[in-house]
Order: sequence, then C-alpha cells, then structure tokens
Amino acid sequence: VASGRRADRGGGGVMASPAVWALLRGCRGRVPRPRRDPPGRGSAEVVATSERYGVRRLPFARLGDGDVAFFERVMPGRVVSSEEEVKPFNVDWLKSVRGCSQLVLKPQTTAEVSQVLRYCHERNLAVTPQGGNTGLVGGSVPVFDEIILSTALMNQIISFDKVSGILVCQAGCVLERLNEYVEEQGFIMPLDLGAKGSCHIGGNVATNAGGLRLLRYGSLRGTVLGLEVVLADGSALDCLASLRKDNTGYDLKQLFIGSEGTLGVITAVSILCPQKPKAVNVAFLGCQSFTKVLETFTTCRAMLGEILSAYEFMDEKCMELVERHLKLSNPVTGSPFYVLIETSGSSSTHDEEKLNNFLEQATASGLVTDGTVATDDKKIKASQRFLFHKSFRPGFALWSLRERITEALTHEGYVYKYDISLPVGKLYDLVTDMRARLGQSAKSVVGYGHLGDGNLHLNITAESYSHSLLDAIEPFVYEWTARCSGSISAEHGLGFKKKQFIQYSKPSEAVALMQRFKAMLDPKGILNPYKTLPSAP
Amino acid sequence: VASGRRADRGGGGVMASPAVWALLRGCRGRVPRPRRDPPGRGSAEVVATSERYGVRRLPFARLGDGDVAFFERVMPGRVVSSEEEVKPFNVDWLKSVRGCSQLVLKPQTTAEVSQVLRYCHERNLAVTPQGGNTGLVGGSVPVFDEIILSTALMNQIISFDKVSGILVCQAGCVLERLNEYVEEQGFIMPLDLGAKGSCHIGGNVATNAGGLRLLRYGSLRGTVLGLEVVLADGSALDCLASLRKDNTGYDLKQLFIGSEGTLGVITAVSILCPQKPKAVNVAFLGCQSFTKVLETFTTCRAMLGEILSAYEFMDEKCMELVERHLKLSNPVTGSPFYVLIETSGSSSTHDEEKLNNFLEQATASGLVTDGTVATDDKKIKASQRFLFHKSFRPGFALWSLRERITEALTHEGYVYKYDISLPVGKLYDLVTDMRARLGQSAKSVVGYGHLGDGNLHLNITAESYSHSLLDAIEPFVYEWTARCSGSISAEHGLGFKKKQFIQYSKPSEAVALMQRFKAMLDPKGILNPYKTLPSAP
Repeated sequence: VASGRRADRGGGGVMASPAVWALLRGCRGRVPRPRRDPPGRGSAEVVATSERYGVRRLPFARLGDGDVAFFERVMPGRVVSSEEEVKPFNVDWLKSVRGCSQLVLKPQTTAEVSQVLRYCHERNLAVTPQGGNTGLVGGSVPVFDEIILSTALMNQIISFDKVSGILVCQAGCVLERLNEYVEEQGFIMPLDLGAKGSCHIGGNVATNAGGLRLLRYGSLRGTVLGLEVVLADGSALDCLASLRKDNTGYDLKQLFIGSEGTLGVITAVSILCPQKPKAVNVAFLGCQSFTKVLETFTTCRAMLGEILSAYEFMDEKCMELVERHLKLSNPVTGSPFYVLIETSGSSSTHDEEKLNNFLEQATASGLVTDGTVATDDKKIKASQRFLFHKSFRPGFALWSLRERITEALTHEGYVYKYDISLPVGKLYDLVTDMRARLGQSAKSVVGYGHLGDGNLHLNITAESYSHSLLDAIEPFVYEWTARCSGSISAEHGLGFKKKQFIQYSKPSEAVALMQRFKAMLDPKGILNPYKTLPSAP
Repeated sequence: VASGRRADRGGGGVMASPAVWALLRGCRGRVPRPRRDPPGRGSAEVVATSERYGVRRLPFARLGDGDVAFFERVMPGRVVSSEEEVKPFNVDWLKSVRGCSQLVLKPQTTAEVSQVLRYCHERNLAVTPQGGNTGLVGGSVPVFDEIILSTALMNQIISFDKVSGILVCQAGCVLERLNEYVEEQGFIMPLDLGAKGSCHIGGNVATNAGGLRLLRYGSLRGTVLGLEVVLADGSALDCLASLRKDNTGYDLKQLFIGSEGTLGVITAVSILCPQKPKAVNVAFLGCQSFTKVLETFTTCRAMLGEILSAYEFMDEKCMELVERHLKLSNPVTGSPFYVLIETSGSSSTHDEEKLNNFLEQATASGLVTDGTVATDDKKIKASQRFLFHKSFRPGFALWSLRERITEALTHEGYVYKYDISLPVGKLYDLVTDMRARLGQSAKSVVGYGHLGDGNLHLNITAESYSHSLLDAIEPFVYEWTARCSGSISAEHGLGFKKKQFIQYSKPSEAVALMQRFKAMLDPKGILNPYKTLPSAP
C-alpha cells in the first residue's frame, strides 16, 4: 500500500501540472466537530480495577453513616449514595477501569470543597476529584472506595473581559459551553479536544490537556493565568490572577497544572482566550508515505506560517475503522496516510491564497496525491488556480474523520492506548515496529495524532483484554520510547494505568522530588490515591 | 499637550482623507536594535546595600583560605578573588545595589556547579548565582559576602534541531548570540529584550523574563521545554527534555522558572524557537490621548490578528529623555503618546496590505495623527494607498526609541523603577496619579511598556536617592496596584528590592507555601539569600 511515487523535486518547485481537489462550501461558520459520546459497548460489566491489577487498598478510613450525614449537612440534596446513581461515576469513559465508591459529592462552591477536604483530611478518608470523566488513563475514577468529588455543579462563569479575552470560571464548566460563550464575544478557548462536549475545564487543567489547538496557541502552562485550588487539608489557595504577566514569587499554580488531582482540587480557572479567527480552512490530504507526511509538514509550516493551526495525521487503518464503525465516508481514498491541515487567520483572502499556494506546491512536487478542502468563506473567486474535484460534497465534516477515531476504536473490543511524544522523524516507526512484533495476535495496530507537536496516538485493539497481549506490548513500547528520549505520556497523563512507567521518561531524582512535593502538600495521601506517582515496589 | 481632536467615528470607518506617513526603507534585514550598554554614570561609589537598606547578615559561614583552595582545585584558573576583578560582579547594572563578595567562581560544567554547591551546602556558605547581571531588582548581586557563581563560561550550544526548532544550550549563553545562531537556521529566539547583548539565557529563565515578543510567542512557561538544575545540596536534576508535550508527573521545571536562583541553579535550557518570520514591519505612531492608544490597540489587534508581534507604548516624556540623553531623533513629534507596532509574518505582500488597511483605518478615524513605518521589504508598490511623509529618513531604528528608554533614564540620576501589570484600561492612570502626587519633588515621572501584555514600566527620577521621595512613592504605588488586582512585578521579579512587597500581589497563604518550598529545596537557605521571599518581620 505504502509504495508511493517518489516526488520529482527538480524544476525549482514551480507548479507544473494542475491539482485536482474538491472544494467544499457547505460548512456554515466553523467546521462542525463531533462530540465524544460514550462508547456504549453494551452492558457487559467492567472488571474491578483492584481485581484486574491486583492493587492493595491503603489504610484509609472506611465511610460511615456519620460521614454521609456530615456531607448531607454541608450540601443538602447534593450527596449521591444510591448504588445505581453512583455507578457511572465509578467507571471510566473507556470502560477499562472500575472503582467501588459508595458516595458522590457535588459541591457548588469553593467553600464547600474546603469543608469536604478539611473533614476528609481529619477523618483520613480518601477522595477522587472528578470532572467530565473523559480521561483515558484511569485517573478520574476511584480504585477502591474513594469518595468521588464531582465538579459537575461548579459550572458558573465568574467573569469575562472583552478587551483582554481573559475568562474566569468555576472548574466544572464544560469546555464546549465555554467555547460557545466566548465565541459570542469574538474569542475562542485556547484548547479544543474530542471530549469537549463533556470534559470540564478544571479537569483539562488538572491533566494539562493538549488537544488540537496546541500547535497554534501553546500549552495550558502559558494560557492558564490563575487558579484557585483547595489543598488536601481544606485550605484554599487563591492564585486566581487575571494578568498576562506576574513575576511575584514562585508560580505555584504550575504545580497543580497536570497533577491529576493528587496535589489539590482545582476549583476555579483564569484563562487567556485568543481572538476568534475570521477565516478557518480545513484541508484533508492523502500522502503516499510517512516520509511525504513529514515533508508536507515542513512545506506547509514554511508556507502557511502563522496561520497554521493544526497538522494532524492518521494512517489508512484509522480511516477504515471510522468508515466501518461510524459510517463516516472518507472523501480522499487510496492513500496509506492522511493529513488534516487547519488554517486560522484574520483575512480569508490572504489565507486562501496561502493555502492555495501551498496546495499547488505540495501537488506539483508529488508530496500529496489527492485531497479536499473545506472553507467557511463563500466568496472564493473561481479565477483562483484552485481547481474543483470531480465530485462536489457539501457539508462534510472533515474534522470528524480525525476526532472520532478514538470512538471508532472502542467498537473494536478492548483498546490498548499509548500516547507518545517522539522526535517527528521517528513517529511512525513505532507503529511499524509494533505491527511487525504483534502480527496476528492483535486485531489492529493504528497510528494517528498531532504530528505538529510530535505526538503519536498508538492504539492496539483485540476482542478482549488479555495479559499475554499486554506482555507483548509492554514494556516494549516504553523501552522503544525511552531509547528515543520520548515521553510515554504526551498529553493523557499517567493516572492509574501509566504511573508505574514514569521512570521511562523521568530520572529517579525527579520522581523522588515529585514524591517529596506530594508528601508536603498531602501528607496523608488522601487526594486521588494510587494515581500519577508510582507505588513503592 | 494632550488635548487631542476627538475622532469622528461616523461614516462606517471607510477611509476619508489620505494619511501622511514616512515610509522608511533604509533598514536592511531586521530592524536593528540597540544593546543595553552600562549606564556609565562616572565612578561615583555605589552605597553598599546592607548600609542603605539596614539588612542584617544571616549566620552563614565566612569564607576562609581553605575554601578558596578547594574551589581552585575544582576549577583551576577560574576562581576570581582580586578585589578589582570581583568589583563589577558586586554591583548591579543600574548601580543601585552593591554587595561585598570576595569571590567569583566561573564553572564550565554542570558537574563543577554540583561540586561547588555540595561543598557550600556542607560548609554553610551562601551563594549568589549570576548570569549577565542585567536584572533591575537587585536579584543578581550579593547583599553581603555571598560567593558569586557566574555562568559566564557555561556558554556552549548543546544541540539544535532544524525540524522542530528546539535549542538545547548551557545557561550562560548570551541571548543575542543564541538569536544569531538560530536565525542562521531559519528560526528566532522566542524572547527578546533590551538587555539581549549581555543577558544569559539561564538568567532569562531564572527570572521568567518577558520582553518584546511575549505578545506573540507567549511566556517562557510555554516555550521552555526542559531544564537542568543543580539543587542547593549539589544534586543535579535532569529535566532537559526536548519534547513539546510531556505529561509524565509534575512539571518540576516550572518551579525553577522565575525563582531567581533561590531554589536551584539552572545549568542548561531546552527551548522551542519559532520560525523566523519572512517579513517584519514596524510602525511608530503618535496618539493624542491614552484613550486613543487603547482604541488603536483594539483596532490593530482585530485588523492585524496573527501577524501582530509587538504593541509598545511610551509617553512624550520618555521621548524627550531619549532625545536629550542619547541624541536619538523622534521622527514623529508633537503627540503626548507614541505607539510602536511590529508585525511578523510569512508574506510581505499580505502583511503590508494588512498594515496599510489598519493604518488607513486608524488615520481615518482619528485614532492616530502622525506616524512612520519601517519595513525590510524593498518591493512595496508605489501604487498602494500608503503615502509618504514629507521627509524621508532612511535607516532610522524605530526600535531604539523604545528599547533605549531604560538607558536614557539612568542619565537622569537615581531612578525609582516600577514594573506593574494592570488591566489595560487603567494602565496610565497610575502615571497620572503619581505625577500629581509627587509634583516638583520628582525630576520626571514617565510611563511606557508592553501595552499588549498589560505591562506598565513606571519610572521616577531624581538627582539622587532620597528616603523622603521613596516614602512618597511607596507604599502608594503598591496600594494603588493592589486595588486594581494588578501585579507589583510584571516581569522584573522581586529580587532584593521588591521582596518585602510580595503581599500586595499574593495572599499570605501563597507566600507561606512558597516559603515551604524554599525550606524543602534549600533547608539551609544558602541559595541567593535575602531575595524573592520576604524576610521575617
């Protein structure tokens, strides 16, 4: 499949032959993107985490009737203890881990979170903070009977400044709702991800979510301007500044970004929103080899410059799954690799001209063999050298093809998920090596991800979970990554499922220092236990 | 002076009358920017810090002959102890604080830094790390007899990846040298500041330097990808990753960014460099009121969008000082406020079109009354509606007018410097209020800064230092800032001079937590003592 005609790169790169594309005009406003709906794999019971992984419960106190009565006094009517209602909070979105908590608390204010934690700290009760429960590493559900502290009702917007674009809101606001809110005022959220319809901004910050806009707007470490956090002992830390620059002392909030609820509970977030781009274009292209995917990236980064806002790639196997399980249709077929390029800018004329020039160059030099483009501008002039595809497909959401891969994968059975940072040149070698290693023992081995950020999502599926397949994958995948000085978790975090592998990406001195921070901020270890840091051997 | 004709905003904003501008073409390549040369205020002796501020020396050990002999064995020939040679390391660039260290150490490797700190930790000897010594808050020089650990000889580039733009280098590399190095390969450093000719990248990171490109490329919290740090006890922490995304555990490096050498000594930096823009334009404009400066900002942010890379402002008093002391000439006169706008993009044609449209709009609506533009593109078409100024001034470095204000101020005598973050709308009110408050007791009260980041540099000058003037300024300036929830140090840090004022921008719980981090990482307090955190009352 991946034979690929080698591009003729002679002739100075001037366009020689006309490219053939579909120009899609049916998308009103922004290109629509799908929500991440639950996998819905029937009612098969998920194996309890403690059983599958053989974990030992730490000596926290057991929940008693007096405890429930206390919480009921703190937040009357917002204490959930019926088995049926608690159940969905115990299982992760992937249905891969399950805890056995008996209690979900739904505070509305920071003061209530403080009261809960002060009490749990005194009583030595373990607590698992939970946002939208869309995490992929088992970080957001209990392992045993930890009390679930849900941010679902902490969903108020506190302020939005239209001049600076700074949004301050409670931790439980759903990302998509926030995006809609700021869009009305001419801004967008600086992050976007497949789970946007369910995930909470507090969870995004607690896991340092990356997603689809990182290439353009940078990480949350730069865009989060302030946090309010409740520490393990119930004390509230107000670092909710709304300033782009503040060098007064150590930047404490950074420690909580990406700490997965193990150092404190984020209750409010101040975040810098970029201006809403006036023009957005999406191109979906086919490449005949991964080498061409890389060359296409270098070319488009140089030619699109500041308007490039996403460069995603996926292999043909991903597209097969999306077509088979979700009935989406791929307008560009017959290539071993696909690339999704998004531009966001302030002038539709300029942006389309840049995109056109790039597409002509990429086609002329043989980097790209087929493709289709969606634009939200209806005024494209027919005189432009941007030609039409034989078939005209209005309204097709190209982003769905990329964003719904995760969902399509869950229909295959059990999914072994890996989220790896690597030098871009080596990104796909890991997929090829893994495919060769596993042979027929895996149902499928697929690779996709945020190529512009050096981030590969490697997914391996099988009918059901098996120890032997896991042994064939791990630690091979981690050793492979460590040899390239990569990260074994680029954006998903470590949670419960990856915490024992931290040493593949961090030296022991760093892990030891993390443990000292944990011991200092949460001496009893009640916050999200069994997560992020490795348990003692 | 600041009367200002109110702009007629009717008529739909379509350009009515032609604007008159100077189009400067004399700048070859990037617009040249000046280095920050030392103020050179004669040989007047600087008052010792301990004397001026009445600080008490903490009970560290005193340097003995045995200590010097030990260091000489660790780094033969790189131990400086002659009074004459040590002298410049004891005084800050502003000549505002002076320590009395007897020893400067110049390690070349991380291992040497480790050996030094392990020894000092055992011996209870205090250490002040020093980069280019360009800080403005007295953070980089000793207060008493601390040993100075200079990064001057740690100036090696370790690696540069041309695909990703990731640079890894030792902490003592000079920012301007690094920029020249990466420019040759098609990239630029993500930060730029007046001190670039002297400041070290390690010092930039240790102080979380902001500077002139933050508006476009974000803060060091996003662009620094990894750090190598030696802790107080001499142990080295290798977090020198070269990955855009890595969510394996807590992001330890963040704690050292902006910690001003009080938590560890940064020995190497991994940093993400953006692509070198193909086109850079600079406009220098006059506005008749601060309200118009703000409206010009909103307009240009909307119209220039992703190519806006700097929006700096300065008042007419700043320009007077630059003209008087540095003999620079301002091509745009007669306005109470001036604005410098920089665009950086990938297409000179597109960028000039955007800039032209903005300038036409800003002139037509009366936001801007005069201006001049420098561009590095020689192919601007005469047919564009961008008109020429009566006088043609080739080769004028507009950036100098902004960047050399700090230097011009030092020629006035003693400078009281404040670096404040405020909501942009209130940014200049502080200058006006301060001017009214001080009346004739100050020589000049000037305001300039990074308006796009909400960052005001407020400077007050007098012939010489006086307690009574200081008392008139402080705590007034801090109380004013705190009332607006601003930051009393946007980018300069707290160092020695601002540490006692941290509570104006941080709650006591946050300061207490910072002190716990300090105690954990540096239990003997040997690293840059008397800095960043307030001393006990």
